[in-house]
Amino acid sequence: MGSDPAFKGETVGIVGLGLIGGSIGLALRDPGRLIVGFDAHEASARIALDRLCVDRLVTFEEVMKADIVFLAVPPDVTVAVAERAMALAGETTVVTDCSSVKTEVAAWAQKGKHARFVPGHPMAGHEKGGATYASSWMYRGARWILTPVKATASTSVRAVEALIKEMGAKPVRIEAAAHDRHVGTVSHLPHVLAAALVNLGESLESIDVAGGSWRDMTRVGGVDPNLWTQIMMQNRVELAKVLRDYEGNLLEMRTALENDDREGLRAILEKAHKLKAVQAPSEVKNPLRKGKR
Amino acid sequence: MGSDPAFKGETVGIVGLGLIGGSIGLALRDPGRLIVGFDAHEASARIALDRLCVDRLVTFEEVMKADIVFLAVPPDVTVAVAERAMALAGETTVVTDCSSVKTEVAAWAQKGKHARFVPGHPMAGHEKGGATYASSWMYRGARWILTPVKATASTSVRAVEALIKEMGAKPVRIEAAAHDRHVGTVSHLPHVLAAALVNLGESLESIDVAGGSWRDMTRVGGVDPNLWTQIMMQNRVELAKVLRDYEGNLLEMRTALENDDREGLRAILEKAHKLKAVQAPSEVKNPLRKGKR
Repeated sequence: MGSDPAFKGETVGIVGLGLIGGSIGLALRDPGRLIVGFDAHEASARIALDRLCVDRLVTFEEVMKADIVFLAVPPDVTVAVAERAMALAGETTVVTDCSSVKTEVAAWAQKGKHARFVPGHPMAGHEKGGATYASSWMYRGARWILTPVKATASTSVRAVEALIKEMGAKPVRIEAAAHDRHVGTVSHLPHVLAAALVNLGESLESIDVAGGSWRDMTRVGGVDPNLWTQIMMQNRVELAKVLRDYEGNLLEMRTALENDDREGLRAILEKAHKLKAVQAPSEVKNPLRKGKR
Repeated sequence: MGSDPAFKGETVGIVGLGLIGGSIGLALRDPGRLIVGFDAHEASARIALDRLCVDRLVTFEEVMKADIVFLAVPPDVTVAVAERAMALAGETTVVTDCSSVKTEVAAWAQKGKHARFVPGHPMAGHEKGGATYASSWMYRGARWILTPVKATASTSVRAVEALIKEMGAKPVRIEAAAHDRHVGTVSHLPHVLAAALVNLGESLESIDVAGGSWRDMTRVGGVDPNLWTQIMMQNRVELAKVLRDYEGNLLEMRTALENDDREGLRAILEKAHKLKAVQAPSEVKNPLRKGKR
């Protein structure tokens, strides 16, 4: 099976050739594999081809004849693209998506009884978009969440997991609603906090005089507004809830400051110090970033 | 002038041999210079000597006979140590401190008319303390703020600035109150936000499944509670004010989420996207971190 009858090996298809899709292509490059891709924006597709993220550009229809297809399109169009993808998919083609919010697409997969569709979410990326910034190592050491539903065939899940492992990532199965709660805290909230901090910086005379903490905390503060409006809005109920909890933590710290409550503040910082020590070991995800920080 | 009559070159003294003091020693190592140090904790002093942060350990009194002395002690004791230092200082010894809050020490310097004391603050460091983590390059590319007062002799400022430049840092003169407002936003606030985020992580089943944004935003979330209680409390008025502003930004974003106000959220993210592009160029401080992120 594959999009090219002359090719005897495995065929991988990628729909959406941005940072996520482009990096999948680079991570899966192998002499025994044909990687075909499609992007609705010709300029984006061209960059991905130039950077060798895909072996060739084909039509959406042709991509869907590959053995396995990754949909790496924006959250708002994921379900629509998935719907069209499954209508065109080859008889044994397995399809997975990369959207960072999972409840909606999981519900769609269950409703349509799509045995060969696996809802997924690679926990990797960075603040710059586009295949220009794609890299073969972006998924190395990262968690790649799959949220299969009842309708999902276990063979489909295993097929996707095999490629995830090949990319150096670690597949993790979680229920879709639990996923959305979790990423609301560990991913979407940090992006809210970074944007709010960058906007606070507007009042500064010069941001030139800043240390590493400002740089790191604002790193994801300038991400693509269109993409992140989609992500945050798709997960807005969970995100608003966790943001409210976070505001509670800040209020507690501000109250300690305003009341000159030294012991109160110290207790909060000590709790964080202890928790951080527990949270730390799993934080080094990218082997290229293991160096002294 | 110098602490060792047999030594003919310049002598630098360091009081407090932790991350900050130790890194100053490593950054200033030079065959034509003698670096002497003192730390009230013998174990800390020993680490600094073992790591060659200083050429030799001497008494506090002897350190104060050096040509130039850096006080790198915790904020709460800075004024007391500075008072004792100026009482013992050699006739031409220039003294500077490294405390991250400047209003109090600047007021003390002015009140005592200390012409040879220069209030200072190196905008560098990282989440681990102690000379174990000191490095010769920590100040490279960093801003090093000086907040001279009326009583400060301009020759003293220039002497400190010369060594700051030698460490690869860029000296910046700011008025003490402006400094404290500024670092309240660019340094102390990020530390509050990181601690609050780490504490929110307590409710997570597993922090294992997290991406780069969580890692970066919590990097300074586990800093030394004693040191940071001192820093935040010394700057508590400014910090509480800026924290209140920040909470306002968060509330605006949460309101957009709760009201399903897509355009409202997008406008906030677009503002951050534009501001970030302006803030970005000055962010790469450490030449070792210029690589792809």
